[in-house]
Amino acid sequence: MALIVQKYGGTSVGSTERIAVVAEKIIAARNQGHDLIVVVSAMSGETNRLVALAKSVADPPSPREFDVLLATGEQVTISLLSMALEARGCPARSYTGAQVHILTDSAYTKARILDIDDQRIHADLAQGKVVVVAGFQGIDAEGNITTLGRGGSDTTAVALATALKADECQIYTDVDGVYTTDPRVVPEARRLDKICFEEMLEMASLGSKVLQIRSVEFASKYKVPLRVLSSFTEEGQGTLIAPEDKTMEQALISGIAFNRDEAKLTLLGVQDSPGFAAQILGHIADANIEVDMIIQNIGADGTTDFTFTVHRNDYQTAFSILQNHAKDLGVREVQGDEHIVKISLVGVGMRSHAGIASTMFKALAEEGINIQMISTSEIKISVVLHEKYLELGVRTLHAAFNLEQAA
Amino acid sequence: MALIVQKYGGTSVGSTERIAVVAEKIIAARNQGHDLIVVVSAMSGETNRLVALAKSVADPPSPREFDVLLATGEQVTISLLSMALEARGCPARSYTGAQVHILTDSAYTKARILDIDDQRIHADLAQGKVVVVAGFQGIDAEGNITTLGRGGSDTTAVALATALKADECQIYTDVDGVYTTDPRVVPEARRLDKICFEEMLEMASLGSKVLQIRSVEFASKYKVPLRVLSSFTEEGQGTLIAPEDKTMEQALISGIAFNRDEAKLTLLGVQDSPGFAAQILGHIADANIEVDMIIQNIGADGTTDFTFTVHRNDYQTAFSILQNHAKDLGVREVQGDEHIVKISLVGVGMRSHAGIASTMFKALAEEGINIQMISTSEIKISVVLHEKYLELGVRTLHAAFNLEQAA
Repeated sequence: MALIVQKYGGTSVGSTERIAVVAEKIIAARNQGHDLIVVVSAMSGETNRLVALAKSVADPPSPREFDVLLATGEQVTISLLSMALEARGCPARSYTGAQVHILTDSAYTKARILDIDDQRIHADLAQGKVVVVAGFQGIDAEGNITTLGRGGSDTTAVALATALKADECQIYTDVDGVYTTDPRVVPEARRLDKICFEEMLEMASLGSKVLQIRSVEFASKYKVPLRVLSSFTEEGQGTLIAPEDKTMEQALISGIAFNRDEAKLTLLGVQDSPGFAAQILGHIADANIEVDMIIQNIGADGTTDFTFTVHRNDYQTAFSILQNHAKDLGVREVQGDEHIVKISLVGVGMRSHAGIASTMFKALAEEGINIQMISTSEIKISVVLHEKYLELGVRTLHAAFNLEQAA
Repeated sequence: MALIVQKYGGTSVGSTERIAVVAEKIIAARNQGHDLIVVVSAMSGETNRLVALAKSVADPPSPREFDVLLATGEQVTISLLSMALEARGCPARSYTGAQVHILTDSAYTKARILDIDDQRIHADLAQGKVVVVAGFQGIDAEGNITTLGRGGSDTTAVALATALKADECQIYTDVDGVYTTDPRVVPEARRLDKICFEEMLEMASLGSKVLQIRSVEFASKYKVPLRVLSSFTEEGQGTLIAPEDKTMEQALISGIAFNRDEAKLTLLGVQDSPGFAAQILGHIADANIEVDMIIQNIGADGTTDFTFTVHRNDYQTAFSILQNHAKDLGVREVQGDEHIVKISLVGVGMRSHAGIASTMFKALAEEGINIQMISTSEIKISVVLHEKYLELGVRTLHAAFNLEQAA
């Protein structure tokens, strides 16, 4: 018998029929003897409906009141799911974020969880009840309703699993696990049985949208095993995301992530003097633009070229900022390119293996793919390519590292 | 400068356009220097939508979870209205029932208010904010969400007015006041400037659906002046409902109420012995059926006839109960009639005036209307007639007492 936190996202509870299916899944798990805490999102479409209501009243709406509005979405789902469970003879009890004191800071629309009161939940579990908690929401110290922002329900689930020392936190979604890469790009992509937190973080931050990065960070920090499962299929163990298992032979490469939302900016003929990078990026940060990759090569003539990538939505703003400061910064020329993609090999196994990078670059070269930028970390190698090479590049690398076969 | 509680019902906030109109009304009142607490219902149609969702998941749904679901309706309205106020530069702050601790008992779907925490509200008012509170909802001592049942938002408004010692509680609705009778039946019906609590209670309980009886009882008990106003028209002072004003000349009759939702049941040839009525009504009460009028005439031969009225929805059940017990009770025959209406004259002025009843009966007799039952209280005379006489009866009495003219 284990204590399990299950989280069902918006599409999993997108209709009353879907809610009935979820209720059956929960009851099946309970019949196996598990204690269950279930976290749910708003029914798919509901958040959009509420946002449209708000915008028709005030644009932008007051952040505090926007959170009061959005929080109703999950409240509807917790009540409907609890009704469905009780109607099937399964004792259940719903709680809003406020009712179980999911204490957050006061940053409306993007609050962070500080603490959870586990008393009521423990009492209900002891009485054999399934506890159904609204994801995505909390209250601040003054009792104001807050929401956690994107992926907030995943975060709620992990936070509850941490607070209640759950054995596993299961994230039910519309995919049946984490794949070696996006199956829409590589049909041979394979579901991973297991992936470690570090790898998942790299995969998530690089655009694999299965899990939100915040919840993976949270789970990693508190060592809560996460499992990604489909709520739409009957069978399947999904993918377990857990601390790195030192006793096991690690796969060289776990997967290939990619990101087509970036653009790159290059400053040519920069005086190579201390503090220069900080100055440039300071201007960018002042505009609230996040920078991803940063590359600088040492030049021969005392000047250097400085390149970084930003989200495509920020490209025009970033470009203008650089042009406005080009003269002060003593830059010869500002260049930019929106037509790029980033492809990354991820795997803790590459720590102890040489030659990954050369295999990667060779495979791309054999297809005539030009590499514009390279960046590496201990468990990741990223390359920036022209966007036209996205599919070819990913498929080439997937095959080069035999990812269609289990390690 | 006064402290005013305003309550806007479902049709008054039925769309985002209507919410904008309500925001303007609130700002106009605030610009006159008033402190404002605003109570709102769910947008019209929203509660029906939520009920349908619940029924498609579980029928009947768990009462606790049903309240969690329904409470989202008002939460949506408070957030939208507060956004609309803030967007117009009017500082506002929304509160759910839980957030201002509208403490109730634990009778889900029909809870009663026990206490209200006025601290946060006072603090906000002191800062010049409009306080927007969700009607219809509260929490019990364990923090479970409760709802107050029909007309609950009116009750919330009156309870807040009481707790905060407001100068007036204004109920905005889709009618512009309390009328001498239903204008759809009598086009000459006149809006009353003022009516006392006792009269309003009789009018409300007899089917004038402007205000819920619970909120009038509450206001009467705590002597909170109530005012019924339209949120759809610009002008008008509505109708003030206040304690009886002894210094004023009272109108003889304030209004004519009627009720077409009743049915009558008669037991013929009943042994006239002590405890008999209690026995009959005990059986009816056991089935959770409420009884309205009760009439018993003393018979000549030691037997008597016993008649009472129930809601039409309960008629069949009540009839079966009586038939099942007819033999035990020693009753000769059970009769019933669903085709009745009750018409009542209401007015505190009738206390000190004789002859009201005879004027009433004479007017009806002149139209050939047969009176089936008569019941009186200090400020009310009710008659039961065949339902075909409803309109004729009401119009005849309205004219007989000159109600189209102000007293």
